[in-house]
Amino acid sequence: MSEASLIAIDWGTSNLRASLLDAAGRPIETRNSAAGIMAVPERRFRQVLLSLCGDWIDGRRVPLIASGMIGSRQGWVEAPYIDSPADLAAAATQLTRVEVAPGAVLHIVPGISGLGDDGVHDVMRGEETQLWGAGLASGSCCVLPGTHSKWVWLGPAGSIERFQTFMTGELYSVLTRHSILGRLMHFGAARPAVFDDGVRLGLAQHANAAHVIFAARTAGLKGKVDAEGLPDYLSGILIGIEIGSVLARHPLRDVALLGDDALCERYRAALRIADVGTTHASPDATTRGQWQVAVQAGLVEEKRACKV
Amino acid sequence: MSEASLIAIDWGTSNLRASLLDAAGRPIETRNSAAGIMAVPERRFRQVLLSLCGDWIDGRRVPLIASGMIGSRQGWVEAPYIDSPADLAAAATQLTRVEVAPGAVLHIVPGISGLGDDGVHDVMRGEETQLWGAGLASGSCCVLPGTHSKWVWLGPAGSIERFQTFMTGELYSVLTRHSILGRLMHFGAARPAVFDDGVRLGLAQHANAAHVIFAARTAGLKGKVDAEGLPDYLSGILIGIEIGSVLARHPLRDVALLGDDALCERYRAALRIADVGTTHASPDATTRGQWQVAVQAGLVEEKRACKV
Repeated sequence: MSEASLIAIDWGTSNLRASLLDAAGRPIETRNSAAGIMAVPERRFRQVLLSLCGDWIDGRRVPLIASGMIGSRQGWVEAPYIDSPADLAAAATQLTRVEVAPGAVLHIVPGISGLGDDGVHDVMRGEETQLWGAGLASGSCCVLPGTHSKWVWLGPAGSIERFQTFMTGELYSVLTRHSILGRLMHFGAARPAVFDDGVRLGLAQHANAAHVIFAARTAGLKGKVDAEGLPDYLSGILIGIEIGSVLARHPLRDVALLGDDALCERYRAALRIADVGTTHASPDATTRGQWQVAVQAGLVEEKRACKV
Repeated sequence: MSEASLIAIDWGTSNLRASLLDAAGRPIETRNSAAGIMAVPERRFRQVLLSLCGDWIDGRRVPLIASGMIGSRQGWVEAPYIDSPADLAAAATQLTRVEVAPGAVLHIVPGISGLGDDGVHDVMRGEETQLWGAGLASGSCCVLPGTHSKWVWLGPAGSIERFQTFMTGELYSVLTRHSILGRLMHFGAARPAVFDDGVRLGLAQHANAAHVIFAARTAGLKGKVDAEGLPDYLSGILIGIEIGSVLARHPLRDVALLGDDALCERYRAALRIADVGTTHASPDATTRGQWQVAVQAGLVEEKRACKV
């Protein structure tokens, strides 16, 4: 039954995950590594991949597909962006090939580039594949929280119509670790009520972001929020700023959340305060999307799973 | 002629400067040190001060006054904030005393605390003294660019009526040094035209800050701004966001700039794009402000400089 037909690789900035898929696109085995592209020394991407799943490549002679930052300028080989609106069929014609071993070729899914109505270029790598795997309805808006969270508006057949990136996760990381805001903080406690206060402040004052984040210091100095609450307070303020900025331009009644469970839960709580309903999209969307791109590109031939 | 009457100490986060002033408040000698409060190990503030100007203290028996972060929770002793509106006379009655050596007492000027109409507490330490020394007119707005830049509205007799802090300088620092935005940047070149482009973008999109800063990556990826221009592009975007946020709530025709020359020049250029005129307040305002507080507090008796 479990004849392997594809090696699907999710290779991001800080993680690498490889899945061996059967002829119906179901995982036979999955392996994880901390060798995200920023952790690979001297661009030794081939060696890292072979050490993670060289046995799969040698033994099976199946095609390989990858999505994520591995196709960025800091990755193995730059897979040129395709412009939005972009669907899976367009991506499948633009895979970038790199030889892993004699006879074994890795196909890298292109990222998506878009030009916002604010004149700002925007890019994604990896999220497009995840979105196609999630199979969301035309007209829906999907939020992918993360280091660089994305808000994506979908068109017919999963087409990515337009999107915006917010540096919310990275702002939280650099401000807590490297700015004066972290100096008063104690980490490790969960303070949902303080998080909610932060969200309300961020929503109300999203248009004054560089000022309102300073509240995560002054609330500590003035004894309004204790040291254990300050991390969640800043997290709430930043997520509130992100949501408030979007809603001011694009009123929304509901969005789909796609990504890490704990982070999606934060966004769900924050969106509820902003009166936006949420659904949670399937977490194995990335592998599913990679499978679908591989099928569309003719790398594999889909066989329906036998139910009996 | 040059009888010493006051030791005036400007002790901030990253610098320490001590000036020996004559009986008319004019500097006889000034000494600088990199021993800002974050660089003082194990709170050895007394030793640091004595090693910088212990000879002045031993030899002259003159009073000492200090302003800046030395009065913060991370400083030598916490000098409680006074609430805005606050003028020099109020500050002079609230000096916090700490003994430096037998018979030598350091008087620390209080910081100012305020509650904005957005419900956010705000604080300053050091800028209040600088503002009083600058002698700005009632009704004027003063911008003090820096790590945490301040916009301050002044009332009668130099009273600090209300103010807002923006983390612009620290955002630039942590984003260039610790975020993905720094990865594409080459530092050291000045690109005024690119800076202006960033300012225009920040002004227009100030209400979408967490998104628009990502333009400092995508403009590089898309070849719109070269690696040498990206630092000035981000600087322009951040300063544009700050100015745009203020002007959206408080239309202004002109402001006074107070602080470091190079940084004030950046703000002058950015404010000109936003059609706000600028004047440049005197750079030796801090020492002058410390002198005036000391006079008001009765620590020294002002003697008019003899002109003949």
